[in-house]
Amino acid sequence: MQEIITLDYGSGGKKTARLIEELLVPAFSNPALDSLGDGAVIKGDGQLAFSTDSFVVDPIFFPGGDIGKLAVCGTVNDLAMCGAEPKYLSCALILEEGLPMDDLRRVVESIRMAAGKAGVQIVTGDTKVVEKGRGDKLYINTAGIGFLKYPGLSPKNIKAGDAVIVSGTVGDHGTAVMLARSGMMQGELTSDCAALNGLCKAILESGAKVRVLRDPTRGGVATTLNEFVEGSALGIVIDEDKIPVRPQVMAACGMLGLEPLYCANEGKLLAVVDAQDAEQVLKAMRGTEEGRDAALIGHVSAEYPGRLVMQTAFGGKRILQKLTGAQLPRIC
Amino acid sequence: MQEIITLDYGSGGKKTARLIEELLVPAFSNPALDSLGDGAVIKGDGQLAFSTDSFVVDPIFFPGGDIGKLAVCGTVNDLAMCGAEPKYLSCALILEEGLPMDDLRRVVESIRMAAGKAGVQIVTGDTKVVEKGRGDKLYINTAGIGFLKYPGLSPKNIKAGDAVIVSGTVGDHGTAVMLARSGMMQGELTSDCAALNGLCKAILESGAKVRVLRDPTRGGVATTLNEFVEGSALGIVIDEDKIPVRPQVMAACGMLGLEPLYCANEGKLLAVVDAQDAEQVLKAMRGTEEGRDAALIGHVSAEYPGRLVMQTAFGGKRILQKLTGAQLPRIC
Repeated sequence: MQEIITLDYGSGGKKTARLIEELLVPAFSNPALDSLGDGAVIKGDGQLAFSTDSFVVDPIFFPGGDIGKLAVCGTVNDLAMCGAEPKYLSCALILEEGLPMDDLRRVVESIRMAAGKAGVQIVTGDTKVVEKGRGDKLYINTAGIGFLKYPGLSPKNIKAGDAVIVSGTVGDHGTAVMLARSGMMQGELTSDCAALNGLCKAILESGAKVRVLRDPTRGGVATTLNEFVEGSALGIVIDEDKIPVRPQVMAACGMLGLEPLYCANEGKLLAVVDAQDAEQVLKAMRGTEEGRDAALIGHVSAEYPGRLVMQTAFGGKRILQKLTGAQLPRIC
Repeated sequence: MQEIITLDYGSGGKKTARLIEELLVPAFSNPALDSLGDGAVIKGDGQLAFSTDSFVVDPIFFPGGDIGKLAVCGTVNDLAMCGAEPKYLSCALILEEGLPMDDLRRVVESIRMAAGKAGVQIVTGDTKVVEKGRGDKLYINTAGIGFLKYPGLSPKNIKAGDAVIVSGTVGDHGTAVMLARSGMMQGELTSDCAALNGLCKAILESGAKVRVLRDPTRGGVATTLNEFVEGSALGIVIDEDKIPVRPQVMAACGMLGLEPLYCANEGKLLAVVDAQDAEQVLKAMRGTEEGRDAALIGHVSAEYPGRLVMQTAFGGKRILQKLTGAQLPRIC
């Protein structure tokens, strides 16, 4: 008989303890976690970054990743975008009754691998179980603590003339998940899900004047660039021709009625840097695995205050607003 | 028409932004949150406590509290039990499509009030929406950071002869939630849901030799006391007559087939302290609102290694094991 999660595993009693002691603690083992107190006691630092995300992606396994890898990379990236070195993660599971234990084992292994690769420790956690039909296989929340190494990154620093850089191809995660969900063309297109702390470090140690870094997840590149300038006296102009998009993503978006610029990314970042340092930053980015397709896609301009404007491939101009409504529900 | 949560609110686009900017940020307002970056930048400290819990309680409103108050108090308490001063919380919401906006507003207000009372700031958060039937109204994850003030609390410190103290009546939260769920006798019995950082401070600054503090939530007092001694050469003996239980809790437990010692508490703690300091600790506890019914309920003994033993009201002895299976699913 297939071993599955039952409500007993969330009781706080013996079965919860077994799950924690036999599956979770061995996978994530480190001194802070092993003590199994109410919380972890960890070494701190003078200035911290702190972030959280819940992950509800459907399906939980998709080409290029799964909900576990996503849960680690998502929070690591949020910390890295603050200019912090990600150090510690929490991991809280909401399991749906009936979840095959093998699926949970596979996700836990994926969390372990992603945390190891990103250089972070899972030091504390929680496990709850809800009845069948009150969840969807599993949801994961991670919160993370990073030590702030490069303070002061903020959209408020942006100046007219600054260069706008994307670290690689756009829309990979959103389209990969949508295709996996629809059952079409699985595997031809993979999520970009990756930890970007190494890439951030390369950018921030390149010597360039970096104004802000952000990973364009839900809402995509168009929404994040809008957030950089909304309510400010500056706008951003991007050049459609310069935005790297995989042909498969373009094709899938056409088929699904999506726009790559609004599709979620899980292993890409946008950087706004002093125009004079753009080449230096691109070089530093291209020296990393996650930034090898980095491209200069536009610049900051005083001409369109508060707006994101795209120069189209046909020579026209289009205002791109923030995403309205749910282009892609449960994409992360 | 009643305003409800739709999938759009989880898209990462305009509606998500509106929810965050019009409801969440004004409620929790503080400088770290207001900057709305990928994470919060906060002042740190040399040694930290870090904890997380997801809350899936059903029903979300119950006598004495709701899921919002619980989500704040639960994580504050986990940090306090580590000997830390709780400082910052994250708050991540998983909303089910169709949730009335008024319910969300009420929960958010409750989070705001509980955080204010406990003296913690909500500095970062996340909002996801899942389809109807993939959640249950709302789930909340909080993670918390505390500054470690009283290091070294651990069950490993326990010595034979130590006093075992409970901060008040046992089983209130579990029975209140079960009654609310069943629709019986609502209001006669209220959850003990409360932040215990003030109580912990009173204990730890009393000058007593404190071995370990822990809040007996899921699994109740019997499970937590088992955790203190399992695998060790020491046992704990408690005296049934000395355990404070409200008559209403006793009656409700009888009716529901539950045992108060296995019912969840959300505003109680267990303290193991040097026997010579027991009176001093009880006095310090009774000087606080949360500890006014504190009682000495037993002692640590070398006689029953690894066991929790109860001297019954009838003069017999009973071994109490950890909770097996789900006495009360979705109690927190």
